Amino acid sequence: MNYVLAVITQFNNSKSDEVVVKARGRAISRAVDVSEIVRNRFLPTVNVASIVTSTEEVPRDDGSKAAVSSLEITLRK
Amino acid sequence: MNYVLAVITQFNNSKSDEVVVKARGRAISRAVDVSEIVRNRFLPTVNVASIVTSTEEVPRDDGSKAAVSSLEITLRK
Repeated sequence: MNYVLAVITQFNNSKSDEVVVKARGRAISRAVDVSEIVRNRFLPTVNVASIVTSTEEVPRDDGSKAAVSSLEITLRK
Repeated sequence: MNYVLAVITQFNNSKSDEVVVKARGRAISRAVDVSEIVRNRFLPTVNVASIVTSTEEVPRDDGSKAAVSSLEITLRK
C-alpha cells in the first residue's frame, strides 16, 4: 500500500499528469498490483498510457552479470 | 524454460503470427521473463504487440473472492 500512496501523492502534488511505476524481477507483479489498485480503487480517471518490458543487466556479488526482466507502467490522468 | 519452449513451438507450428502469454498474481514476473527470453535469445523477429493489465476475481477456498492482478503479453512475428 505504500507504493499506492506514493503514486496517489505524486498525482496530487506534482503538476505532471503522468506517473511511471517501474519494477525489476519478482517485484514486477507488485508494480501491476499498484497500478491496478490505484486505478480501480482510488483514481478512476487514471489510465494505463503504456507498458514496456525490457531486460537489464544487474551485477552479481562476484562481478558477473545477471539478466533481469523489468517493467515500466506509465499511468496518465 | 518450459514456457519459452511452448511459445517457440506455437510460433513454429501454428499458422498464427501471434502468441499471447498470460499470467496472474506472482507468476506475472515469469510471463515477462518468458517474453523477454523468447525475443532476446530465440526469436529476434518477434515483437511485443501489446501488454494489458487487469484485475480478476478468483474464488478462495471459503467461497469469498480475492482480487488478483493479471497480465497479457501479445507477441507478434
